Amino acid sequence: MAKFQVNILGCGSATPSMRHMPSCQVIDFRDNLFMIDCGEGAQLMMRRMKMKFSRLNHIFISHLHGDHCYGLPGLLSTLALHGKEGVLTIHMFKEGAEVFEHFLKFFCRDISFEIKFNIIEPGTSVIYEDDALTISTFPLYHRLPCVGFKFQEKTKLRHLRGDMIKFYNVPIKELHGIKNGADFITPDGKIVENARLTTDADPSMSYAYCSDTMYNLKVAESVKGVDVVYHEATYDDAEQKKAVERGHSTAREAGRIATAAGASKLILGHFSKRYKNENTHLVQAQEEFPDVIVANEGMKIDLL
Amino acid sequence: MAKFQVNILGCGSATPSMRHMPSCQVIDFRDNLFMIDCGEGAQLMMRRMKMKFSRLNHIFISHLHGDHCYGLPGLLSTLALHGKEGVLTIHMFKEGAEVFEHFLKFFCRDISFEIKFNIIEPGTSVIYEDDALTISTFPLYHRLPCVGFKFQEKTKLRHLRGDMIKFYNVPIKELHGIKNGADFITPDGKIVENARLTTDADPSMSYAYCSDTMYNLKVAESVKGVDVVYHEATYDDAEQKKAVERGHSTAREAGRIATAAGASKLILGHFSKRYKNENTHLVQAQEEFPDVIVANEGMKIDLL
Repeated sequence: MAKFQVNILGCGSATPSMRHMPSCQVIDFRDNLFMIDCGEGAQLMMRRMKMKFSRLNHIFISHLHGDHCYGLPGLLSTLALHGKEGVLTIHMFKEGAEVFEHFLKFFCRDISFEIKFNIIEPGTSVIYEDDALTISTFPLYHRLPCVGFKFQEKTKLRHLRGDMIKFYNVPIKELHGIKNGADFITPDGKIVENARLTTDADPSMSYAYCSDTMYNLKVAESVKGVDVVYHEATYDDAEQKKAVERGHSTAREAGRIATAAGASKLILGHFSKRYKNENTHLVQAQEEFPDVIVANEGMKIDLL
Repeated sequence: MAKFQVNILGCGSATPSMRHMPSCQVIDFRDNLFMIDCGEGAQLMMRRMKMKFSRLNHIFISHLHGDHCYGLPGLLSTLALHGKEGVLTIHMFKEGAEVFEHFLKFFCRDISFEIKFNIIEPGTSVIYEDDALTISTFPLYHRLPCVGFKFQEKTKLRHLRGDMIKFYNVPIKELHGIKNGADFITPDGKIVENARLTTDADPSMSYAYCSDTMYNLKVAESVKGVDVVYHEATYDDAEQKKAVERGHSTAREAGRIATAAGASKLILGHFSKRYKNENTHLVQAQEEFPDVIVANEGMKIDLL
């Protein structure tokens, strides 16, 4: 199974806490690392979680609150000290790109790699695409412009049936086409249907990161059909009013979004520092949606 | 004894390490907190070490390498979230003040307190003074302009002898003068010498922070007579050549500075991440100077 893994580097909210680091996740997609948000201490957590700095080429910043981006200067300086080469792309809103460019121009002169800013907009659009993966933004509803990120694995290749490939003596040069669904035509013109030569491809998985947002069913529309949904759950029911005031969600509301989106799994995060543990978040989300994971630093979740 | 304590929040060098945070110390002087350097994660360490954010009003940045100042934005944002009031003064070089001002103008708008930059120069000068303490800079010798910071406690008040004060029936309004060394004149004109009324004041202590620097005996001149000296010791003897190349010092060189300065205690820090422990640093520094402390995160050192 090709790797598609969510790594939790930080799942706390704005004020520092004894238990949680500020927001940061790394999606390990077939050994390419994509970082989502980069709170202070992200580089330290990458190191503690033994992730290879050299495999990180894209960083996505959901919005311009410090607890989602203050880790950038330290991480970039460390990448330079590690002699990183090539291009690192930071996907963020325009205002933030301007401020960070000014800052990095002073502190990260003469570095070994190029930092490129890809300006994102508050709406829905594809911001990254390769042969196997598409990453797109979708709107969230916070106190300032904010987007979520959807990671969609493309259709995978079908599995060859070794016995049948041998039986029909299929030449190697035909195999790629057959994995992609082509039929095989024998030297004497007979058509062998693809279904006889292959079995189904592994399912293509998808992940959506719903950063800071108040409860809004439009979010569920945006992530409809996604397998695993991360949704912020800053508060529990008791702080429902505060959630509305601050543009955040409760764990129960995160559960409702997962249900409305038809997800198979929900990850909760962005916990306020007021809680000694997140047991209440878990129970309240479970009342709305069955399969809930409470994020914690160091956690790795395989998308299966 | 009035509190004068060095708190180690980070004693690693530029690249992140599993064992050490980047540079940061907090001097707790009679419950006023003075931060020296502010590497990424400083706010987290303050919290872990249970230091009151409200007591921090001055931050001193020795030079403009990221591992000595990237913790500023996170710390300042957190102070704002805690509703800090009044003025926080950041003492740093001009170029850095300009860059951080630009950055903070975006991320720390509408905060509850004033951030003031006090521009420091590479030489020797008094940058802070109150009734009990003087803080001054002195030059260091790194790859870019860098200063150390000297904390000098002022002469303290003499201790009153309760029995003698009672015997001579000294009025309360005279006591302050007597603590400061004045004699007492009785109502009938007789002079009672101060030495009969008081005992000696506690000694006034001093501390010097020698941030990133290559070995240079001028540093020992600058910190001559200081009680406790912190000196960077990035490398051990085996990396002597690298120390010269990179503008850093070995532990042995730190020991030599402490001896030349006539210090009573030496604290080593700014350790390269290449070491599994700092035992070699300790032994090599001890060959030059007897009383050596190897810094570690969470350590509190009282100046006695």
